[in-house]
Amino acid sequence: MSSVTNNTILIPAAAMQEMFYSILIKNGLPSGAATQCAAVFTRSSVDGVYTHGVNRFPRFVEYIQKGYVNTNAVPALKNKTNGIEQWDGNLGPGIVNAAFATERSMQLAKDFGIGCVALSNTHHWMRGGAYGWQAAKAGFVFIGWTNTIANMPAWGATDARLGNNPLVLAIPYKDEAIVLDMAMSQYSFGSMELASMKNEKLKMPGGFDSDGNITDDPAAILDSRRPMPTGYWKGAGLSLLLDILAAVLSGGLATHEISKQEAEFGLSQVFIAVDITKMGTAAAITPIIENIIADYKNSVPAGEGDKILFPGERVLQARKTNLEKGIPVLEPIWDAIVKLDATT
Amino acid sequence: MSSVTNNTILIPAAAMQEMFYSILIKNGLPSGAATQCAAVFTRSSVDGVYTHGVNRFPRFVEYIQKGYVNTNAVPALKNKTNGIEQWDGNLGPGIVNAAFATERSMQLAKDFGIGCVALSNTHHWMRGGAYGWQAAKAGFVFIGWTNTIANMPAWGATDARLGNNPLVLAIPYKDEAIVLDMAMSQYSFGSMELASMKNEKLKMPGGFDSDGNITDDPAAILDSRRPMPTGYWKGAGLSLLLDILAAVLSGGLATHEISKQEAEFGLSQVFIAVDITKMGTAAAITPIIENIIADYKNSVPAGEGDKILFPGERVLQARKTNLEKGIPVLEPIWDAIVKLDATT
Repeated sequence: MSSVTNNTILIPAAAMQEMFYSILIKNGLPSGAATQCAAVFTRSSVDGVYTHGVNRFPRFVEYIQKGYVNTNAVPALKNKTNGIEQWDGNLGPGIVNAAFATERSMQLAKDFGIGCVALSNTHHWMRGGAYGWQAAKAGFVFIGWTNTIANMPAWGATDARLGNNPLVLAIPYKDEAIVLDMAMSQYSFGSMELASMKNEKLKMPGGFDSDGNITDDPAAILDSRRPMPTGYWKGAGLSLLLDILAAVLSGGLATHEISKQEAEFGLSQVFIAVDITKMGTAAAITPIIENIIADYKNSVPAGEGDKILFPGERVLQARKTNLEKGIPVLEPIWDAIVKLDATT
Repeated sequence: MSSVTNNTILIPAAAMQEMFYSILIKNGLPSGAATQCAAVFTRSSVDGVYTHGVNRFPRFVEYIQKGYVNTNAVPALKNKTNGIEQWDGNLGPGIVNAAFATERSMQLAKDFGIGCVALSNTHHWMRGGAYGWQAAKAGFVFIGWTNTIANMPAWGATDARLGNNPLVLAIPYKDEAIVLDMAMSQYSFGSMELASMKNEKLKMPGGFDSDGNITDDPAAILDSRRPMPTGYWKGAGLSLLLDILAAVLSGGLATHEISKQEAEFGLSQVFIAVDITKMGTAAAITPIIENIIADYKNSVPAGEGDKILFPGERVLQARKTNLEKGIPVLEPIWDAIVKLDATT
């Protein structure tokens, strides 16, 4: 990912963040929201999650320009009972709403040991892992998820009725965190499009062809529109439950309702934080995790090049490289972003 | 599963439960614990989850007889702060401890909106779905998981370092519930042994052969001891996070520590309940879920026989059949149970 090819340029993080901020201000975001969104889009890119960082930024601006995003909106409290709260995102920027909900869930966890914020009527939170990192770096265990537009068939079906509904689990680890950010489709359409363009096979079977056979050919899956749920029927079931829980707990829209709109907005999300210092194990946490990771790392690799990485470990590597050398961006994408700044 | 072959007999639920109770009492369980364990083992069998019901019962008795299970133990509170509590299971029966922890998490949810009980030093909870049903039938959303002995390699590895760490999500639905009970290995060793005995292929690739190729041949996977994590690297990552969270939150053993013992005990588990009536949507919950399920059921089946079932739906069907006709049990298994009753 950090390999620099002919049409990739390296953008320093600070320059990227300034560019994003400039564009967002010109598009009507208040200064605070623009700062926050620019920072999260940049950090995701620094962390190597380009699909929901720099590559996604133009679509976010397009959504603002189309009027889908209420640039000045702030979330409003709908219901509250001790450790749980329900908030209306008022269709404000997804990053602003999700970061706010994460912060609220941590405040509730401080007060009640565990806190849950359910958020309705919001926009795509971009990289789910961002909120896992936010909470874990502040010292909390985090469990969160979002629903999405329908983009994956149920198990045994051919038409998309389920979202890929990413699930995030995170925990502090030394000065960093272990963060799992896991969509319920095995491969995203974006990664399959990329593999197809490069004429590459997927590493593992990732969907069905039009005859209903499982395949590792991304072009065949793009053609059939039948990506495979993570773990076959299991990921399909988990996607369904996450959607039901998000809609019920937030009182917001479910995937089937979001999918009937002209675009993907009005999402429902859940943010759960646990204050681990309340469990009386604060001092003991680091060695517990260190020992688990040490055993995990002792695994016997299947092949010579196989590395046994924990969730979030690749992020740490990308972060180091990209902060040192700059963030690799495909030239056409950066050109489009520069143009957005010039023409808005 | 409800088909009756030559070596399958049908046992009425009441007779099964009486038999289990009789054996457990003879093996030293107090009356209350014996009643509860007999009921849960029977209910799991009624629900068609034979692997963790009747088929597993003899091993539970074996664990009692070997002294692994403290028959008279009750859980003890270790820590408490508002909505979260930490309990020591004192190596009591896994079912008794898990049902207690589920009940406590619901009580905490009543008081604080959301409640979390982390349980250390317990035994296998048998069927995880049992606690999802327990909470959802009482009107709560439930999220729970357990760690296990190592039985699955990390992604890219050949030796088992991860547990299959089942995750349970549940929500009330009409008079019943939607319950997802999902282990992090794609297929259990039990189901692969069964398929192998019958000379059947798995429906989908379920692991690697000894050459490192993915395969749907259960015998090859049993031979390599390389079952596939649910969703490849994703289920492996989720398994690792669930183990870390269970060990940290409960202050109990992690998978690598459990695996160093002479048998699988001293597990760590997490039980989270949400009181959905606190979210101000009590009246609105049923139609929200009904509409999601209706849309899901409108899926276009891939093949003629393909049924689009939601998690827990198969359980409802098995329950109806087995309550009417009796629970199908393999004769050698029932014979062994009858013998346990006679010889204890």
